[in-house]
Amino acid sequence: MSLNQQVHTATIRVLYGDTDAGGIVYNGTYLRFFEFGRGELMRSLDLSYKNLEQLGFLLPVIESYVRYKSPAYYDDLLIIKTCLSEVTRKSCRFHCHIYRDETLIAKGFTKHACIIRSGSLTNLPDDYLSGMQALTE
Amino acid sequence: MSLNQQVHTATIRVLYGDTDAGGIVYNGTYLRFFEFGRGELMRSLDLSYKNLEQLGFLLPVIESYVRYKSPAYYDDLLIIKTCLSEVTRKSCRFHCHIYRDETLIAKGFTKHACIIRSGSLTNLPDDYLSGMQALTE
Amino acid sequence: MSLNQQVHTATIRVLYGDTDAGGIVYNGTYLRFFEFGRGELMRSLDLSYKNLEQLGFLLPVIESYVRYKSPAYYDDLLIIKTCLSEVTRKSCRFHCHIYRDETLIAKGFTKHACIIRSGSLTNLPDDYLSGMQALTE
Amino acid sequence: MSLNQQVHTATIRVLYGDTDAGGIVYNGTYLRFFEFGRGELMRSLDLSYKNLEQLGFLLPVIESYVRYKSPAYYDDLLIIKTCLSEVTRKSCRFHCHIYRDETLIAKGFTKHACIIRSGSLTNLPDDYLSGMQALTE
Repeated sequence: MSLNQQVHTATIRVLYGDTDAGGIVYNGTYLRFFEFGRGELMRSLDLSYKNLEQLGFLLPVIESYVRYKSPAYYDDLLIIKTCLSEVTRKSCRFHCHIYRDETLIAKGFTKHACIIRSGSLTNLPDDYLSGMQALTE
Repeated sequence: MSLNQQVHTATIRVLYGDTDAGGIVYNGTYLRFFEFGRGELMRSLDLSYKNLEQLGFLLPVIESYVRYKSPAYYDDLLIIKTCLSEVTRKSCRFHCHIYRDETLIAKGFTKHACIIRSGSLTNLPDDYLSGMQALTE
Repeated sequence: MSLNQQVHTATIRVLYGDTDAGGIVYNGTYLRFFEFGRGELMRSLDLSYKNLEQLGFLLPVIESYVRYKSPAYYDDLLIIKTCLSEVTRKSCRFHCHIYRDETLIAKGFTKHACIIRSGSLTNLPDDYLSGMQALTE
Repeated sequence: MSLNQQVHTATIRVLYGDTDAGGIVYNGTYLRFFEFGRGELMRSLDLSYKNLEQLGFLLPVIESYVRYKSPAYYDDLLIIKTCLSEVTRKSCRFHCHIYRDETLIAKGFTKHACIIRSGSLTNLPDDYLSGMQALTE
């Protein structure tokens, strides 16, 4: 991921409910942060996930990877940088880097399949496909 | 709540993911524990929530109360005692006490309305109503 | 709670991770939203919880109550209105109302005790006590 | 991972609080399930994580990977099979497969570093190292 203009930046405040008894953000919480990042990226393109869902499509996560580089703490204001690294007719992949100021906290990706409610794999709607592909070029 | 034979007992192990940076179980986690307790109570009556849902009914929480008496910690094996304290045609209330050994950790209740998917208030199915009312007598 | 200038307003976007299979925000998630609301209220007074914690104090929740009025959904932008309704030397209570536009989604409170790390009840630091009491007058 | 006798099996019931508005278990919840699986594996060896923590050691997750193969639903009784795939003086890796009956729901791993509270990398205590290495042979 190169940090060019196609990377979307969002910020999120760490709650007590995001942390664990180790005194740091719980490992599973980062997948929530990734979700927040890609949701805001899609919204910024006027291709919201909510709208996709209302059209009858879902983009379930089929793969996730997180590399935890440095702990994050309660009350940290985290910077979530998200980009679309891969888009095909039936799937896409978001990359995410999380920072506190200049410190890299975590990075990783989620891969998604495009399905309809019944669970069958399907093509992304054309406007989503073209809008998302434009971002990866 | 008197602890008679109509109280159902379940146990749950506290995960790191249930705790927060204060070193104790997060306040919101107890509503998960309450959910676990009432789910197991209903299953023990052969009136599972899953089955109710498949019949087209939902029992959303319309009120919750928790009194936190003593902290619970990572790895604690908690004892969840649940009973039905009130059942009407369209609502019910579960009471819950959580212990670690003899120590009372938290107690409280959740009140639920019976609705159909569209959100309209409706009557509990007859077998659920009679089975649940039998427990409160 | 009267909605005067002493009420702090924050907004939060509902994630998939906040919802459940009933298609609405999970009942336990509201205690996270309450936490977010009171954290932002305290920050707005320059009396952050993080700072209190660094001074060696904790404000664990000793009581919580939520009245769920109307469901909230994925992607809703919720408005969280929080005020301090009661402050004593050793405890405080926050009231919270959550709205989507004009619709009241949920309301309730959390009551907190002031303790030191070892668990003993203690007085709030003077600046916190006076700053918080000023808000309830 | 070959499913021999060195694989530990635990079961967990899916709560509403584990699911999302897509009607299935939320992607981030699987990292909780992984935590439950490895915690029970360690307990079965009399090498509990709680005890390690009391000795002053932590095993934070430094890497996680999940491959979501098939959705899991509310009330599913999931079977969590966990093994230790790699143990060095300062790190270890757990592999996890989650099933509902014969259906593979998800698989993946978490990698952990051994640190002391201050955050410095350190060696696993000897009894943990030998007990854990015995499992990978």
